[in-house]
Amino acid sequence: MIQQMLERFAIATRGRGLYEVTREVQGCVARARVQMGLCTLHLQHTSASLLIQENADPDVRRDFETFFARLVPDGDAMFVHTVEGDDDMPAHIRTALTAVNLSIPIAEGRLCLGTWQGIYLWEHRTTPHTRTVVVHILGE
Amino acid sequence: MIQQMLERFAIATRGRGLYEVTREVQGCVARARVQMGLCTLHLQHTSASLLIQENADPDVRRDFETFFARLVPDGDAMFVHTVEGDDDMPAHIRTALTAVNLSIPIAEGRLCLGTWQGIYLWEHRTTPHTRTVVVHILGE
Amino acid sequence: MIQQMLERFAIATRGRGLYEVTREVQGCVARARVQMGLCTLHLQHTSASLLIQENADPDVRRDFETFFARLVPDGDAMFVHTVEGDDDMPAHIRTALTAVNLSIPIAEGRLCLGTWQGIYLWEHRTTPHTRTVVVHILGE
Repeated sequence: MIQQMLERFAIATRGRGLYEVTREVQGCVARARVQMGLCTLHLQHTSASLLIQENADPDVRRDFETFFARLVPDGDAMFVHTVEGDDDMPAHIRTALTAVNLSIPIAEGRLCLGTWQGIYLWEHRTTPHTRTVVVHILGE
Repeated sequence: MIQQMLERFAIATRGRGLYEVTREVQGCVARARVQMGLCTLHLQHTSASLLIQENADPDVRRDFETFFARLVPDGDAMFVHTVEGDDDMPAHIRTALTAVNLSIPIAEGRLCLGTWQGIYLWEHRTTPHTRTVVVHILGE
Repeated sequence: MIQQMLERFAIATRGRGLYEVTREVQGCVARARVQMGLCTLHLQHTSASLLIQENADPDVRRDFETFFARLVPDGDAMFVHTVEGDDDMPAHIRTALTAVNLSIPIAEGRLCLGTWQGIYLWEHRTTPHTRTVVVHILGE
């Protein structure tokens, strides 16, 4: 019979950058003792996001930062919402351009990630933050 | 035992902009009488999107419009698909850059949204449209 | 009683471009014999994505390519990760700007897609690749 489980975990970020959380999520899947099912992640913030990306070459993560810094520059004169800092509105936009929820099937007790896929929490603020991820697992 | 529910609701937009639908979705969750579960939203359109973003300062929404208007300008000469108007192809691209489905866990009978998270329907066309959101709820 | 099914299908791409997979996914839904439920798609790659977009005018797909080629240019000098080719880092970024998973409710035995919505696999690499989509279906 199909059952469900809900967990939360927190990540303390050291400011802007990609933090891998694949192991934390696999831990939730293992505790749920689900062989086949669906894992949904929801990040409860508006200035950080969840991203599935290459887990091999660290240059990929560096290039992500370079590209997004050019696409949505901190302190851009077009922004009106600046009271929370030069990086706040860009952080909201970077979040909108990526995602705050992910849904990943589970097979044989593990997330169906591809060989090169890792799950990352992408902190978009320049200062450290504590970010909470809600993990919902459904299956049997 | 896990059960499911499917609902639809329509939003009449007044043209481009962010329309909050958090209350409509919470209403569906309440009617489903689910304490713990998963809520999936799907928007049945290709020129509007669903976005989870800050629900506090209206300037945030204004800055979103400013940024996206610069990123994907209406009437850009590069676009070939212009028969439905100068804002149509930009609306498709803005939709692709954001999302048409969201998955949010439910705990204690409510969506697991963060303190500052609201759910928005983002109308990308400049003229009014009626937009339909399908809401699937699973849980117990 | 709610049941689930997991399938995989592969798409051989001929290089960069949008490949419609709506029929493949509807086939999975039909085989699952689910009247009402939820279909989750997960693409197991980091340089291709899943997109729900207009299935009518082919110019829309062409304009998507034009826009993304300008937004994330192949061979841009800012990129450090270039060992896998000029189009590799742009392919990762195009993937991050779109999505690798989609969740679509099922009603009356069919995906709840809007009239103009088609499901596409978007190949971002310039050379042919074989891409695997995992399909999880839950419902009754």
